[in-house]
Amino acid sequence: MAVPERLVVIGGDAAGMAAASQARRLKGPDALRITAFERGHFTSYSACGIPYWVGGAVDGPDALIARTAEEHRARDIDLRLRTEVTALDLDKGRVRTRALDDGGREEWTGFDKLVIATGARPLRPPLPGIDAPGVYGVQTLDDGQAVLHGLQGAPGRRAVVIGAGYIGVEMAEALVHRGFSVTVLEQSDQPMSTLDPDMGALVHTAMCGMGIEVVTGARVTEVLTGEGGRARAVVTEDAEYPADAVVLGMGVRPETSLAEAAGLPLGASGGLRTDLALRVAGQEHLWAGGDCVEVRDLVTGEPRHIPLGTHANKHGQVIGANVAGGYATFPGVVGTAVSKVCDLEIARTGLLERQAEAAGLRFVAVTVESTSRAGYYPGARPMHVKMLAERRTGRLLGVQIVGREGAGKRVDVAAVALTAGMTVEQMTALDLGYAPPFSPVWDPVLVAARKAAAAVREAGA
Amino acid sequence: MAVPERLVVIGGDAAGMAAASQARRLKGPDALRITAFERGHFTSYSACGIPYWVGGAVDGPDALIARTAEEHRARDIDLRLRTEVTALDLDKGRVRTRALDDGGREEWTGFDKLVIATGARPLRPPLPGIDAPGVYGVQTLDDGQAVLHGLQGAPGRRAVVIGAGYIGVEMAEALVHRGFSVTVLEQSDQPMSTLDPDMGALVHTAMCGMGIEVVTGARVTEVLTGEGGRARAVVTEDAEYPADAVVLGMGVRPETSLAEAAGLPLGASGGLRTDLALRVAGQEHLWAGGDCVEVRDLVTGEPRHIPLGTHANKHGQVIGANVAGGYATFPGVVGTAVSKVCDLEIARTGLLERQAEAAGLRFVAVTVESTSRAGYYPGARPMHVKMLAERRTGRLLGVQIVGREGAGKRVDVAAVALTAGMTVEQMTALDLGYAPPFSPVWDPVLVAARKAAAAVREAGA
Repeated sequence: MAVPERLVVIGGDAAGMAAASQARRLKGPDALRITAFERGHFTSYSACGIPYWVGGAVDGPDALIARTAEEHRARDIDLRLRTEVTALDLDKGRVRTRALDDGGREEWTGFDKLVIATGARPLRPPLPGIDAPGVYGVQTLDDGQAVLHGLQGAPGRRAVVIGAGYIGVEMAEALVHRGFSVTVLEQSDQPMSTLDPDMGALVHTAMCGMGIEVVTGARVTEVLTGEGGRARAVVTEDAEYPADAVVLGMGVRPETSLAEAAGLPLGASGGLRTDLALRVAGQEHLWAGGDCVEVRDLVTGEPRHIPLGTHANKHGQVIGANVAGGYATFPGVVGTAVSKVCDLEIARTGLLERQAEAAGLRFVAVTVESTSRAGYYPGARPMHVKMLAERRTGRLLGVQIVGREGAGKRVDVAAVALTAGMTVEQMTALDLGYAPPFSPVWDPVLVAARKAAAAVREAGA
Repeated sequence: MAVPERLVVIGGDAAGMAAASQARRLKGPDALRITAFERGHFTSYSACGIPYWVGGAVDGPDALIARTAEEHRARDIDLRLRTEVTALDLDKGRVRTRALDDGGREEWTGFDKLVIATGARPLRPPLPGIDAPGVYGVQTLDDGQAVLHGLQGAPGRRAVVIGAGYIGVEMAEALVHRGFSVTVLEQSDQPMSTLDPDMGALVHTAMCGMGIEVVTGARVTEVLTGEGGRARAVVTEDAEYPADAVVLGMGVRPETSLAEAAGLPLGASGGLRTDLALRVAGQEHLWAGGDCVEVRDLVTGEPRHIPLGTHANKHGQVIGANVAGGYATFPGVVGTAVSKVCDLEIARTGLLERQAEAAGLRFVAVTVESTSRAGYYPGARPMHVKMLAERRTGRLLGVQIVGREGAGKRVDVAAVALTAGMTVEQMTALDLGYAPPFSPVWDPVLVAARKAAAAVREAGA
């Protein structure tokens, strides 16, 4: 009998464990031995669900775990929790690990094939007090538990969220649900800088309407601590905000220190560079996926870093197939994202104005206001759709949506149209589902497409 | 000054008045004189909204009117309500009209350009009693008023709906909301014959769960009348169903008797045949749109009759632009439709199995069950997605969805993918919006695409 190949997976969350599971589905333990190392206590969990767990909408952490360590082990995956990979020796085909709960015992494990799925780490600027008790990240289930515990023990009900991106606004909602009075500090000019300023302004207004204080242009300089060294206020260049709890929501960077130390190629974003089969550029038996890699932006053709669980899962599927000797690719992304703050739905796909400009594209931009259902139907709610189209070609470049119930997922229509390279003129004829409880007779995306098509014609060459 | 061109529009609902309005936007009254004839009392209304008006969710009829006769007249459109066009004289370029409220006065009106937008008429089989008081169609706002009035005066609370297509199931919901005990009689083997039998069975089960009696294989032979000649029961080949109100929901046929008498070309469906600019085939100055025309099915390339307000509105826009000397086309449809019965959402796009077979296509068909949101998120509801893909090419052929809140409009993703000619393998990589309140990490449509792609690979050549 042939000796089984040895697959090592670094990182036990979405990308890593999806890769391991898919490889196992395609190859039995006689042909492939799989060892996976995970630094934390949990595997295959939905980090995206943490704000809803913290907010009380979801029980956690169990509900957020798609597949437990035991379930993976039952599928012949040798999963080592609380085990950190500390070095990558590509020449000898081995990784060095350290057992975090076992006196730091170190050992080497050899591999024939390797998957790097080390994820991302939250940005945490080196400010005084940033590591004080009462300051929380929300990246892992362990973080989630820490926040929940911290909120219960908070001396009062004032919370400050630093950063108004997806995680920041979702955590603002969670804190409101927990009865906190919430201030969000954002250093740029608007919340949701993943939107254009005009669309971000709609989010700003809506958040204020929910009683959430949003301070823009706020540069945090320090976290003040009080009794027991616990955080008691956040200081910006302009003011001081008392806080019984501080949540960091400043985004993430690819966690690629291991890969970098091993000399693997990183892109400008700091993410690993891969080919379309998600092999690390220049490597034969080494794949990478999830929040630690760059992906191709299908609209500009440029690499981007877009950490998102849905991509990580797809990456895992693709890597697993390739590791097992099959064939699959991940062509890229169009930058779709959807989120909500209380009942406000926020979505985008494709390029913002500044991204289109940076890519050298000339474009028209239009915004329309419509409703999620026929105007006369109960529950019809206003929604804004902004659409960018390239001049001359009329090609769709991006869509942003801000609205209430039924608004967010409409972005999917634009995501498919972007992937297919459709023009906004072509989009005006799309046969989208219509009935009064579901849509106005012209779906809001089509209304935007009509306006954009007219703007392209007017703009001429 | 040049003499203005004369445009005559036959039919004052979506297609006709959208054409008139668009033409007026592009050409002023000095260049174009517009006369529109409408047989009924209302213009530009949402017939699709009638079931919700009857059910009490919507106030009517005013709310259902997008633009009143007065509003059209204020835009220099000479609109003649309650005026029927009785003949089309193409040689002399004129139409003969009869004033329905004015002693039947007849006159001729000349045109340089003509738009036929005569809509569709409900099927009404020539059965004994079918025209009795207490038997209602639901096609026009006048019908809606008659039903509402009839329900108020009904001697009891038993209703029978004949036909379980879109209108039938929507009217079943409306009657339930009005406190009626509802029986739906359907002559085929399942409700919603616009779905495959396996998906229709899901609708059947769900409707029974709502307390709606659905009788399939029911061939209606007669409507029995009682006191005052009023309908009192519906008789099938097998049984008799007492009824205090009877609603007809058996679908519609193109209303093309005028066009046929004038020798204009009709397709197999009875709908007018047009070119891509919606000019009637072979005619220079004659356009047709809305429920009276055939449209191109973009999946098979064949003509189909798909009466739907959203298409009629698009037709109107296209015709208006062309009438005014601009340029626009209506490329066709992919057969998207969405509907609901109480909280059950039903959607389809592309081909059913029997349609794919009739088109000579070989395909794989898969069905998956998933949820509308992340499984752990409150309000996640089960949904079934069925997907058809062509063998060899893997091209998407159709999608059917039956589920609860958040299920129906997901069909739009498939509608765009069909329009773009995507394969199910390509669809597995689609960058659809993901966040726990909006979707599982694999959107249900992607889960179906993965399963379909695997089935295509397995089926081989």
